[in-house]
Amino acid sequence: MENTGKRPEAGSRIPSFRRRPESRLPGRVANLDAGLRRYDGTLWFVLLGLVLVISGCATPQLRGTGDLGLVIERATGSVLVVDTTEHEKLARITGLGDLSHASVVFSRDARYAYVFGRDGGLTRVDMLRNEIVGRTVQAGNAIGGAISQDGRWVAVSNYEPGGVRIFDARTLELVADIPAEYGDGQRSKVIGLVDAPGQRFVFSLYEAGQTWVVEFADPANPVIHKFTGIGRLPYDALLTPDGRWYIAGLFGEDGMALLDLWDLEAGVRRILPDYGKGEEKLPVYKMPHLEGWAVAGNLAFVPAVGRHAVLVVNMNTWEQVGTIPVHGQPVFVMARPDGREVWVNFAYPDNDRIQVIDTREREIIDTLQPGPGVLHMEFTPRGGEVWVSVRDADALVIYDTASREERARLEAEKPSGIFFTDRAHRIGL
Amino acid sequence: MENTGKRPEAGSRIPSFRRRPESRLPGRVANLDAGLRRYDGTLWFVLLGLVLVISGCATPQLRGTGDLGLVIERATGSVLVVDTTEHEKLARITGLGDLSHASVVFSRDARYAYVFGRDGGLTRVDMLRNEIVGRTVQAGNAIGGAISQDGRWVAVSNYEPGGVRIFDARTLELVADIPAEYGDGQRSKVIGLVDAPGQRFVFSLYEAGQTWVVEFADPANPVIHKFTGIGRLPYDALLTPDGRWYIAGLFGEDGMALLDLWDLEAGVRRILPDYGKGEEKLPVYKMPHLEGWAVAGNLAFVPAVGRHAVLVVNMNTWEQVGTIPVHGQPVFVMARPDGREVWVNFAYPDNDRIQVIDTREREIIDTLQPGPGVLHMEFTPRGGEVWVSVRDADALVIYDTASREERARLEAEKPSGIFFTDRAHRIGL
Repeated sequence: MENTGKRPEAGSRIPSFRRRPESRLPGRVANLDAGLRRYDGTLWFVLLGLVLVISGCATPQLRGTGDLGLVIERATGSVLVVDTTEHEKLARITGLGDLSHASVVFSRDARYAYVFGRDGGLTRVDMLRNEIVGRTVQAGNAIGGAISQDGRWVAVSNYEPGGVRIFDARTLELVADIPAEYGDGQRSKVIGLVDAPGQRFVFSLYEAGQTWVVEFADPANPVIHKFTGIGRLPYDALLTPDGRWYIAGLFGEDGMALLDLWDLEAGVRRILPDYGKGEEKLPVYKMPHLEGWAVAGNLAFVPAVGRHAVLVVNMNTWEQVGTIPVHGQPVFVMARPDGREVWVNFAYPDNDRIQVIDTREREIIDTLQPGPGVLHMEFTPRGGEVWVSVRDADALVIYDTASREERARLEAEKPSGIFFTDRAHRIGL
Repeated sequence: MENTGKRPEAGSRIPSFRRRPESRLPGRVANLDAGLRRYDGTLWFVLLGLVLVISGCATPQLRGTGDLGLVIERATGSVLVVDTTEHEKLARITGLGDLSHASVVFSRDARYAYVFGRDGGLTRVDMLRNEIVGRTVQAGNAIGGAISQDGRWVAVSNYEPGGVRIFDARTLELVADIPAEYGDGQRSKVIGLVDAPGQRFVFSLYEAGQTWVVEFADPANPVIHKFTGIGRLPYDALLTPDGRWYIAGLFGEDGMALLDLWDLEAGVRRILPDYGKGEEKLPVYKMPHLEGWAVAGNLAFVPAVGRHAVLVVNMNTWEQVGTIPVHGQPVFVMARPDGREVWVNFAYPDNDRIQVIDTREREIIDTLQPGPGVLHMEFTPRGGEVWVSVRDADALVIYDTASREERARLEAEKPSGIFFTDRAHRIGL
């Protein structure tokens, strides 16, 4: 399969052999020499053909895809394909447009990455051939996406025009367009789009203050459940790892909006009434990423907004049960896959370090300083290592999570998001 | 890479061209004909070489490994490689020995499967080339294995000789031999071997009534923590999905032995004092598989021993908080990945069906009858489908978990265990 491109090249030399019989005529010695010279040329071409075929099918290499990852290079519109076993960069792929705010989901076979760019670009990347195999600029301004439970549909949440568009994961053909209309035909920006069990997509409308649940079992007839008045200006949302609780953060007021996907009839209710800028009204350098919520046991570790704190929330009661002071304004609060530790990075001007929280003691046990502009972290699937993107050092720094020692450092062009292929198997990303 | 085997074949034809110049001598027309005949032969070999190279590298097919699985065919010592996206069998691989009680773990790139056979055989299967790429009969009688957090080491738990042996995951070379010695040099069968975060293996000694934790960060100097007197005859064990709680079931008495891997100093304590055959002393047709524990939220759904019941355990207090009557003696109690449902299969004579429990309502919501001899179930990573092995129907039955309708049925020879490659990324298997 991978050498079809080479077959014509080799084949095109073959007809010349067929002309040889001419030179079989007796006595045409002059012709013979010409014939032999032709053979000489021909034979070298045959060797060339062999070499091309061999090299042609030796790459791309046959390999598993369970230890691959994709790293966003935000400034250059490029991505790196990385190998988490060998700590290697396998390829740089360019031409993905504006990746200043980009995210990635993966096909269920963990071969293809879907990259959602800020400019509305949806790009399908083949991580075995290291090439773009599909791209559509499907909106003017987009903020992320999700892939359906069965892997057949990719949904994108758009700011402009406000709504969600759903595409065939193989062909990137548009299969559904869901404008985020509210009131008298206005359209709202869409945020917090996630996949949910049962072939559902869930997202929220920023200006409209609504959360929509789309049942997409039948792409021709999506069923939409709309929840209105969830709170002012939901700016981001998350789904708990089990796929049950959808939680939206509110920019326009304090508190968060909670929807139980196991019980839509119960509707959206408000939790954590103090969550947000609260009375302190500190300058907020960056609204935290709610995707970053860390869930350990029945506790969630939540980045406070505009305050130097990580909040501890009991997920049975949805009440805040603790506050952990940290080095700066948290951006990502990520649980190590075993839930024993939570790693936190920070907004400017404290974005040069990472703090590690022990989830049982609820205290900081280490502070790391990978370099200037720590933007993202991704743990290897079973938590032995964590990759950190350090934008202003143009580096990816890999730590052993047990010793917290640096294991490797790779050059990368202004790296931001890091995404490993085990995400293909997880719910609510 | 995949065509190196072909390269010599093509190359071996090439030297014959080099002999041509002889026949350049003027006037040697007789030689010419011979020379031409030689070319004829040569050229066909070249074409053959091309064809071989081309076909050689066209297979195996370049593909992702995230949607692959391995199915044990217990009676024939064979395994099936399956594709969970297309519902296809990709290959049958034979020669794996006695698979009457077999289990599987995967390399971190999700390309290689390690199959642990009852006869002590450890077999490394390449799921892209569909062939055995390593096999050692490392003991006389074995009961399962695990792969280290970093994917470098594969451990096998042996009955005869009693102990654990650890192998290099690439070469299957023995790197550590840990005899399960106790008392005056006796050796115990080893059961309940799992991997744990921090490059650890945990297992229990059946006759000795002990649990051992092996720190394997330095293979040359493994550190072993031994916990004695955990209870009589631990017969199986599990690690909770977060990698924290190691729980051993006891054949010799009621109750279970709990070890907190976050706090080894606390030692092993007894939980669920009534767990076991209890006073009823029913005939136990099959001790349940503890690997089958279903964890949903902070509740665990546990197969009762010898009774037609699934027990509900609060994992914060480790107390039983409920009992759900079911159709027969449960064997596997598996949570759908989102934790919303628990699927249960049963021991003889009730092993022809499956019951589905709603974990929120704690009641049976469906009963399925896939056929005679339901041995195992495996959910697709995000829970949209479940594959069921029906031994006496020689079939794999695939259900849609939302509609619980049969989606596909594949022929298989006395199938038992089903293992999907997303296990490569999970803790404690």
